[in-house]
Amino acid sequence: MSASTDASPARRGRPGYDRGQVLAVAVGLFNEQGYDATSVADLASRLGLTKSALYHHFDSKEQLLALALAEALDSLEGVLDEPEGSAGDPAERLGAVLRGAVRVLVDKLPYVTLLLRVRGNSDVERAALERRRAFNHRVTALVAEAQRAGQIRADVDGAVATRLVFGMVNSIVEWYRPGGPVDRERLAHDVVAVALDGMRTR
Amino acid sequence: MSASTDASPARRGRPGYDRGQVLAVAVGLFNEQGYDATSVADLASRLGLTKSALYHHFDSKEQLLALALAEALDSLEGVLDEPEGSAGDPAERLGAVLRGAVRVLVDKLPYVTLLLRVRGNSDVERAALERRRAFNHRVTALVAEAQRAGQIRADVDGAVATRLVFGMVNSIVEWYRPGGPVDRERLAHDVVAVALDGMRTR
Repeated sequence: MSASTDASPARRGRPGYDRGQVLAVAVGLFNEQGYDATSVADLASRLGLTKSALYHHFDSKEQLLALALAEALDSLEGVLDEPEGSAGDPAERLGAVLRGAVRVLVDKLPYVTLLLRVRGNSDVERAALERRRAFNHRVTALVAEAQRAGQIRADVDGAVATRLVFGMVNSIVEWYRPGGPVDRERLAHDVVAVALDGMRTR
Repeated sequence: MSASTDASPARRGRPGYDRGQVLAVAVGLFNEQGYDATSVADLASRLGLTKSALYHHFDSKEQLLALALAEALDSLEGVLDEPEGSAGDPAERLGAVLRGAVRVLVDKLPYVTLLLRVRGNSDVERAALERRRAFNHRVTALVAEAQRAGQIRADVDGAVATRLVFGMVNSIVEWYRPGGPVDRERLAHDVVAVALDGMRTR
């Protein structure tokens, strides 16, 4: 077990799986049977590894959860930091943020699915919820800026509208399947079209 | 246990709780700790009843689940059958259905929350998912009718738009708390405003 304190991914690799592959299998299993209900033994069995070989890759189940949630959160926060999300016309920036969030959701579907199921049962989960809240606050601030600029309607509460529109985006994890009939860019277009301009013809 | 086959609500009542109250406590507990993880003993303990007193009210845990899901589904289907949801201008009918769905969600929050967590692990759950799908198909048909009438934009896929808008409505269970700052009618207004006309000023 001394290797478990060696943080170098290259040193910790095992023939057959790298750390990213182990993480991907873990996330799939957490989504399938629930994080709390998944044991390290279940994961080792799914990978065809012994528990001690698995501990060569990762220190704990919670470390896998933390890495998986960071994968989703880093990507979502990255959308707000991209040039199109952080400069220019506020309504256009909001559109870029929504498009970017849909792309992250599609590209990292299992990671975002796991993130959205987190309920705050541990320090790792509570830290992830705190990052989600901070993300929502940044989007709400962008909506408020667009309202002050007269681009977003003032008769709808900005914080409620942000929750509703991200509820729409997040609901995609419930039904979207990569390789299915709905293409990622088409979906990003439809979300921005409905959220910003509504279903009704103008 | 002979009384457990007596279907009359009046005969099955016990001082302290009627069947509706037992059902409400069960739904709260299912939402709190998960349906699968909740035992009849947990429920009896929460109610301060013996298991056999509880079986005087209900035949099984699954019967409680079936009744709870029917409570949510009957109400949602009722929205489509109401006059404003079933006759007249298709875009106005769609608005009435969305408003009605938000009202059901707020009025029956624990029941709809339970419904939205169902994953198809039993016949009762699969039947509930089938009723949800049939509901979605009826709404998608209404969207298609409004598209043919030129009232709903044709550049967005009707089935995708229906999923997105109900994703928005359903996400309300994640954050809405009765008695909080957001009033039911205000929320229904905001959902219809965003879904039909979008966040952007016209």
